[in-house]
Amino acid sequence: MIDPVDLTARLVRCPSITPEEGGALVLLQDLLEEAGFSCTRVDRGETSNLFARWGDKGHARTFGYNGHTDVVPLGDVNEWTKPPFGAEIEDGWLYGRGATDMKSGVAAFVAAAVEFVRDTPPEGALILAITGDEEGPATDGTVALLDWMAAQGEAMTYCLVGEPTSAADMGDMMKIGRRGSISAFFTVTGTQGHVAYPHKALNPMPALVTLMDRLSRHELDQGNAHFDPSTLAVTTIDTGNTATNVIPAETRGTVNIRFNDTHTSASLTDWLQSEADKVAAEFGVSVAMTTRVSGESFLTPPGPLTDLVARAVQRETNRVPVMSTGGGTSDARFVMRHCPVVEFGLVGHRMHAVDERVRVEQINQLKGIYTSILHDYFSG
Amino acid sequence: MIDPVDLTARLVRCPSITPEEGGALVLLQDLLEEAGFSCTRVDRGETSNLFARWGDKGHARTFGYNGHTDVVPLGDVNEWTKPPFGAEIEDGWLYGRGATDMKSGVAAFVAAAVEFVRDTPPEGALILAITGDEEGPATDGTVALLDWMAAQGEAMTYCLVGEPTSAADMGDMMKIGRRGSISAFFTVTGTQGHVAYPHKALNPMPALVTLMDRLSRHELDQGNAHFDPSTLAVTTIDTGNTATNVIPAETRGTVNIRFNDTHTSASLTDWLQSEADKVAAEFGVSVAMTTRVSGESFLTPPGPLTDLVARAVQRETNRVPVMSTGGGTSDARFVMRHCPVVEFGLVGHRMHAVDERVRVEQINQLKGIYTSILHDYFSG
Repeated sequence: MIDPVDLTARLVRCPSITPEEGGALVLLQDLLEEAGFSCTRVDRGETSNLFARWGDKGHARTFGYNGHTDVVPLGDVNEWTKPPFGAEIEDGWLYGRGATDMKSGVAAFVAAAVEFVRDTPPEGALILAITGDEEGPATDGTVALLDWMAAQGEAMTYCLVGEPTSAADMGDMMKIGRRGSISAFFTVTGTQGHVAYPHKALNPMPALVTLMDRLSRHELDQGNAHFDPSTLAVTTIDTGNTATNVIPAETRGTVNIRFNDTHTSASLTDWLQSEADKVAAEFGVSVAMTTRVSGESFLTPPGPLTDLVARAVQRETNRVPVMSTGGGTSDARFVMRHCPVVEFGLVGHRMHAVDERVRVEQINQLKGIYTSILHDYFSG
Repeated sequence: MIDPVDLTARLVRCPSITPEEGGALVLLQDLLEEAGFSCTRVDRGETSNLFARWGDKGHARTFGYNGHTDVVPLGDVNEWTKPPFGAEIEDGWLYGRGATDMKSGVAAFVAAAVEFVRDTPPEGALILAITGDEEGPATDGTVALLDWMAAQGEAMTYCLVGEPTSAADMGDMMKIGRRGSISAFFTVTGTQGHVAYPHKALNPMPALVTLMDRLSRHELDQGNAHFDPSTLAVTTIDTGNTATNVIPAETRGTVNIRFNDTHTSASLTDWLQSEADKVAAEFGVSVAMTTRVSGESFLTPPGPLTDLVARAVQRETNRVPVMSTGGGTSDARFVMRHCPVVEFGLVGHRMHAVDERVRVEQINQLKGIYTSILHDYFSG
């Protein structure tokens, strides 16, 4: 019997700021092996990852949990009112970096899985895929686990990512998809010169300003049944010209787009490139563009998996979770290439901020929901 | 008898990079006092300036010459093919920093003035106002000389600034005015946030981009008989936001306007402020603006002074100088508050660049023109 609150506290005490393993995965591996899981460390680059399976490899009925033990940096340590790696409990709150994002989620599904296979060994398999790099570049984290699983013939039928998804109250929201994210970096080049002789120069600023204005005003879509409208933000423009009598040769601008399933990173890249080309032709400047895709949009449409999770949540909390696709990105954007995936977890308090904390009773409740999901899935 | 070429060479050998006096003003003061000029060093702050007068103070017929002995930095010394303070002569060119801008001009009017008062002492007075800071901030240069002159009751009827004004050939252009220059610095402030939650943030970028786009596209005027159209250049936009998932709180942009006599810095400040206010209201952001005025536009309309100079130029060069108001700013923008002023000088070769140089015969020719102007003025 694993107490999920105690396990959360033990994980919070592991200083696992990305990419430090901090003892968190070692701790989990010990627990899981003792409970009959076969474990493999799937480290890649600087990142440590843990794969654990109970039951037969390749079973057609395999339920997976995904989560991360790495945490973001502490920020200003002096602003914390409790030790950030102390896991102190006060007034029903457990304090510490990773308390909600998401050591409590990992502790809850590990405790649920261990108890479930011990008490009611199912006909099927459980996989726990736990990464040490969700908060960092995320190139050698869940992606490495999925790559390794594919090579080994390991597969999940469904997967639940245990990120905090509840909004105001435990159980009020789950995530059934996420918007994609693409950044585009523009460099506009003209010809430097003296402001008193503009005809001898070619100022790149009006071209960049026009491009940013057009991109910023463009309506990408109006959203749809499952997604909010896509949004584009101009995040920075930088020139670095300190002389007011000089027309600069070059200037740079960046936009970031959070996009729903109306678009793909490829369709957006085409659109951005065509807008850049148009401005280049109009102003006679050169416009170079590079892009960086953090993730495609994805959706797990309402169906068996979402029903399964919603039912368990309702049973344990008396709340019907909203099926949301809002917010930032998570490792679900990688898992979706592998199998249907949803995200459900507790209410995130002060995630990434100082005095991050979690309600102790929500950890127990979350373990209950995760257990309920397993029961329903394997008895279904 | 002062040889203007020799005097140019001696001045070039004074390393008078702003604000260093470098021996240049000391040298001129010695020469001028010997020739009967009463001299006063009018130093202010870090700047050295020299005031010299021949004849009676406050005479109704007082002709002034204005110039500077300070020079801009050398740039990459290794790129010079001659020593920058060497004043070496080769193939009819005298090389060195300040050779054209404008130690040759100062040498020419000093040589002309000394010879003129010796050979044909006029009924009237000559003033030479020579500054050691035209290339720097110019706050304690010609302005200090004019302040001091006003306090002392010293006045010029007309003034000629000896900057290089000829374009392709000696005598083809004089300046009868200059455009003004004003820079405006905008800071747009919104509310920082995560790009995934744009409704919780207020991005200042679209507001700045719209403001810069409007200013950049606005036609200030179409020019007039004496002036080209005013021009506005966006010179820089800077945000410094390196995170593509963050909407920045603040961004900054700068424009510089070169304006003709259709405008004043005050009328332009009003217009810029109203555009800033409009954008602030439209986008709900705060837009702060500060301005820096380098000079008002001015014009010495064709009349007695311009005729005097044009006649002398034509006599000595067989060219009718175009009366231009183009180019950057000069100390004439200060002198114009004191008396009618025009600018005339030789062809500037590689001003502010490496291997700055002047044609030796142009120095002699310039001295001839300056002498001719004095003759015409005092015999008129």
